[in-house]
Amino acid sequence: MSDLALPMVVPEPGLPPKVTIYEVGPRDGLQNEQALVPTEVKAAFVRRLLAAGLPIVEATSFVHPKWVPQLADAAELMTGLTAEIGDTARDLPVLVPNDRGLDRALELGLRHVAVFASATETFAAKNLNRTLETQFAMFEPTVARAVASGVDVRGYVSMCFGDPWEGPVPVDQVVAVGRRLLDLGCHQLSLGDTIGVATAGQVRALVAGFAAAGVAADRLALHFHDTYGQALTNVHAGLQAGVTTYDASAGGLGGCPYAKSATGNLATEDLVWFLTGLGIEHGVDLRAVVDASTWMAGHLGRPSPSAVVRALAQSPA
Amino acid sequence: MSDLALPMVVPEPGLPPKVTIYEVGPRDGLQNEQALVPTEVKAAFVRRLLAAGLPIVEATSFVHPKWVPQLADAAELMTGLTAEIGDTARDLPVLVPNDRGLDRALELGLRHVAVFASATETFAAKNLNRTLETQFAMFEPTVARAVASGVDVRGYVSMCFGDPWEGPVPVDQVVAVGRRLLDLGCHQLSLGDTIGVATAGQVRALVAGFAAAGVAADRLALHFHDTYGQALTNVHAGLQAGVTTYDASAGGLGGCPYAKSATGNLATEDLVWFLTGLGIEHGVDLRAVVDASTWMAGHLGRPSPSAVVRALAQSPA
Repeated sequence: MSDLALPMVVPEPGLPPKVTIYEVGPRDGLQNEQALVPTEVKAAFVRRLLAAGLPIVEATSFVHPKWVPQLADAAELMTGLTAEIGDTARDLPVLVPNDRGLDRALELGLRHVAVFASATETFAAKNLNRTLETQFAMFEPTVARAVASGVDVRGYVSMCFGDPWEGPVPVDQVVAVGRRLLDLGCHQLSLGDTIGVATAGQVRALVAGFAAAGVAADRLALHFHDTYGQALTNVHAGLQAGVTTYDASAGGLGGCPYAKSATGNLATEDLVWFLTGLGIEHGVDLRAVVDASTWMAGHLGRPSPSAVVRALAQSPA
Repeated sequence: MSDLALPMVVPEPGLPPKVTIYEVGPRDGLQNEQALVPTEVKAAFVRRLLAAGLPIVEATSFVHPKWVPQLADAAELMTGLTAEIGDTARDLPVLVPNDRGLDRALELGLRHVAVFASATETFAAKNLNRTLETQFAMFEPTVARAVASGVDVRGYVSMCFGDPWEGPVPVDQVVAVGRRLLDLGCHQLSLGDTIGVATAGQVRALVAGFAAAGVAADRLALHFHDTYGQALTNVHAGLQAGVTTYDASAGGLGGCPYAKSATGNLATEDLVWFLTGLGIEHGVDLRAVVDASTWMAGHLGRPSPSAVVRALAQSPA
């Protein structure tokens, strides 16, 4: 058999020549796993993803262990990674839900953090125990102090396209939340389709809505879930709208606890196949990511839902 | 919870306002099933898909039972369907691999048939026991006699994007095969990504290659497999290139026996979600297709691989 371990390359005119893949597997992918993954397995996973060429790997979250027991070892993980890979570990982003989380990140000398906002009233209440308005009071001091400390802050916005309680989410509402996070000092927004319901026209409309509010595509990242199989077409629409950063999770790990589907985050491997076929530079070694995901799937005791991982697992390396 | 049984509708400028979904589940989807599906179950599946609004349902193949034991009941199925739904059954397309198959279709008064060609030398040898050139000698009398009998002929072309033995397939080679089928009298070509490796730029290039050879997009259908998760982005590229007919299989049934991945044909439900979100008319009742697929999955004894089927199975009807 001929080598079909990579797609044929046929560029599409007008797309960005280069894309940044923001890997969320170790944090977003693992956070909902019930069985605790040993810290050294998490560290090895992060190291393998970095070795595969992923330019950004979000490593963990300094969230209260009561809410996410899986990530209770955040400080231990980051300390271990710093011992192992030195300064590189300090550039791995970590989620900090509040001021206490930021304290812990600063103590370890970390240089990139992320905060998490909701685009809808109901999800703000359920996930943050705040209102759409009062959630900002929680982030404001955190973002301000991080920026003052020379730390980059990414702002996640969840439920940007649809919300399981409220249905479709108006573009203006998402833009207002995103605009506030940028004004507080975030350098980038990650716009999340937390329940995976978006289709291509919605992506185009949301990016246009931000442009109309003075937010250029280079301040945006897109974070898609593949719950309804739409994640890659949404990336395609995002590329056509000029967005150059995409979140993805190695092996398709993870998903939203409020949408218990078999499929969660867009798999890094499916994204890499797509970008490679379009001749878009990404710097990632597909086989190395597949190997890392397959290795992690072994630890978790179930196969990866990624189509590319499944297809390549059946072909020779 | 709000009703998210359908996506929010946000059209994308420049896409076709209406698309024809060509349902291949009962034929392409079932043909590789090992356990024989009872003829009355197949008939009920076809009737349910028609009732769900699918405008074209390819029902079976008049192939020699030695090659596809699952479809050995082709004549019995079509006779039964004609008794049940009358003349509508005569408009259901059936595959006829050769002259003998056409005889059987004509005996039953069927009005739509399809022939099957390969775009590559190796697949012509393995699947048809012919060469790229001599395969036409097999179709020529079949297509000519069908057309002379007032029967519409669709020409499938397989391995249009990549071949597991030969790797990437040149556009000119696919166009030459397709052009020959049209010259023989086929009214439409279905261009198949049999092993699911294509990405969006390749789709665009192939449609452009046909246009350069004088074949307009309205003579083309696209047939994608989701083996590498790329099927819907390929549909997106096809829509942007003006193609308005897409093959899909209810519940994602089927796949190519030469690419034994977990995922086979593009699922009708995933396609319907996508088209609905883009405001493209398709006439299909999503919930009714999901119900038909879930019912068939029960008969086959395993869950549907369709993301939409899985997601909606967990939400109230």
